[in-house]
Amino acid sequence: MAKARLRTIADVGEFGLIARIERAARRAGAASGLVLGIGDDAALVRLRRGEDLAASSDAFVEDVHFRWQSQSPARVGRRALAASLSDLAAMGARPLVCLLSLAAPASLPLARADGLVRGLVAAARQHACPLAGGNLSAARETSLSLTVLGAVARGRALTRRGARVGDRILVTGSLGGAALAVARAARGGRLRHLPTPRLAAGRALARAPGVGGCIDVSDGLEADLGHLLAAARGGPLGAELDPARVPVPRGFRPACARLGLSPEALALRGGEDYELLFTAHPGAPSPAVLARRLGLPVTEIGRVVSRPKKRRVAPGEAGWRHF
Amino acid sequence: MAKARLRTIADVGEFGLIARIERAARRAGAASGLVLGIGDDAALVRLRRGEDLAASSDAFVEDVHFRWQSQSPARVGRRALAASLSDLAAMGARPLVCLLSLAAPASLPLARADGLVRGLVAAARQHACPLAGGNLSAARETSLSLTVLGAVARGRALTRRGARVGDRILVTGSLGGAALAVARAARGGRLRHLPTPRLAAGRALARAPGVGGCIDVSDGLEADLGHLLAAARGGPLGAELDPARVPVPRGFRPACARLGLSPEALALRGGEDYELLFTAHPGAPSPAVLARRLGLPVTEIGRVVSRPKKRRVAPGEAGWRHF
Repeated sequence: MAKARLRTIADVGEFGLIARIERAARRAGAASGLVLGIGDDAALVRLRRGEDLAASSDAFVEDVHFRWQSQSPARVGRRALAASLSDLAAMGARPLVCLLSLAAPASLPLARADGLVRGLVAAARQHACPLAGGNLSAARETSLSLTVLGAVARGRALTRRGARVGDRILVTGSLGGAALAVARAARGGRLRHLPTPRLAAGRALARAPGVGGCIDVSDGLEADLGHLLAAARGGPLGAELDPARVPVPRGFRPACARLGLSPEALALRGGEDYELLFTAHPGAPSPAVLARRLGLPVTEIGRVVSRPKKRRVAPGEAGWRHF
Repeated sequence: MAKARLRTIADVGEFGLIARIERAARRAGAASGLVLGIGDDAALVRLRRGEDLAASSDAFVEDVHFRWQSQSPARVGRRALAASLSDLAAMGARPLVCLLSLAAPASLPLARADGLVRGLVAAARQHACPLAGGNLSAARETSLSLTVLGAVARGRALTRRGARVGDRILVTGSLGGAALAVARAARGGRLRHLPTPRLAAGRALARAPGVGGCIDVSDGLEADLGHLLAAARGGPLGAELDPARVPVPRGFRPACARLGLSPEALALRGGEDYELLFTAHPGAPSPAVLARRLGLPVTEIGRVVSRPKKRRVAPGEAGWRHF
């Protein structure tokens, strides 16, 4: 018997692939705010009274953001939507719908295209953010450009602007785990880490009193803290950060040691953990109270200070890292 | 003197390019509904009471949707946003904001990146749809994935679903001009055609009584009429179309003759004219009245019939084309 030829996107064509995506999206069910989904010129979405719309786009490009070799197509789709939704979490928004702009060569195996969509739709169902539209295009490499739309009560959105001098710097969960997983995968393993967008925590944070600025940790703690300080209304501000207090996952230091990696470098500069990094004014609830409200560990890792310091203190030397 | 080296994206880096885009977007001014633009985790947008959100994504990929050789970077940016906004026009929505997901190789000349953004922002200002966010990514080829967000009064959106048997089939403006311009550019000329999204006409149409289904002509009249008939609530429906009545631009037939092109093929199957193709129930205003309301020529080109016909009648043979 002849070996079956691998089926590709070219075998079903643009409209065949759209039909497959539409079926997958339908199986995931509709959401309350979705008036009109895939199949028209635009999706129609209804917000509740008194809500603003939050909108964010992110791209995931083959060999830049993901490699087919190190994870299943479904995991690529799941990770892409999770990373996108993290931006809504950082605004304190509830997800409404997502749109997928998928570009791929006609030679892409259909199993990969189907897998991507299956993973994305599974994450969309998990986070109540149905796939409501998008488009397909031919391209030399595969890429997903995702737009997520969310809703947030007017005037209650978390932004990057709110940090003030004297604020505590707080972070949810732990950092460095994603970078460790990526380092393992780069050594020939599979990428097993799957980030969770902190959507419920972001919404709880948007309701909490005394919260300053907020951002999600996608580029790494140092980089994203830098963005937060630069965007502060009275900014740019500075920070005193205690690297020893940065929370890391259980078993993180021994695992780094086995691989010859610096746990501090991974925790401070590794990205893609998608935890929430935020500041709290002096009158805000304590980290312990916030942790209960957010349903996640909340750790104080430093303070916002008045101005960027040129001086950088090496960790161990003084215990503080200055921006 | 040494010749100045061509500057590329790599020379300014990701955040340098973001800063350039932010400056260009700021110069274009803000819109009334934009609460928070570029520079945070998500853009924040406010709708008016009683409005639904319309959201659509489109991609424009180098060597698939555009060639650097045949048009200026600014024109690529302008065309991309115009094409995207056409989807809002087809829903009868007013534009709110757009998001740009820009992927490009680090070697892309900065002049091209700046030009793309300049053209896009110029179109954004023209159509009151400011650039409110997005992202940048490295990639092998340049592509723009644009998301446009609009607002439409609840229950008043034009959709593809509304066509009914007995409806007149109407089209705004003229068809075939874009395909003629593309054919000219393919012969070594420059691409001079710039489509205008029919935003004001779409909004007027959403307010008019007796309008059935609506779609914008992006893939070509035959293809998009096919989509409209397939999406009809009671569908799939059929159509009787009179090719001789399809409106074409002034001087179109002689220009086609000089290039050895079939004017009918261009008018029926050429895409990217971005006119509105819609149906009107028997009680709807006449084409002449609709034309006054829409501020555009409106031409009746056929009728919706009960079911798809297998038979296709060649033009000239009977004067009708059946779907």
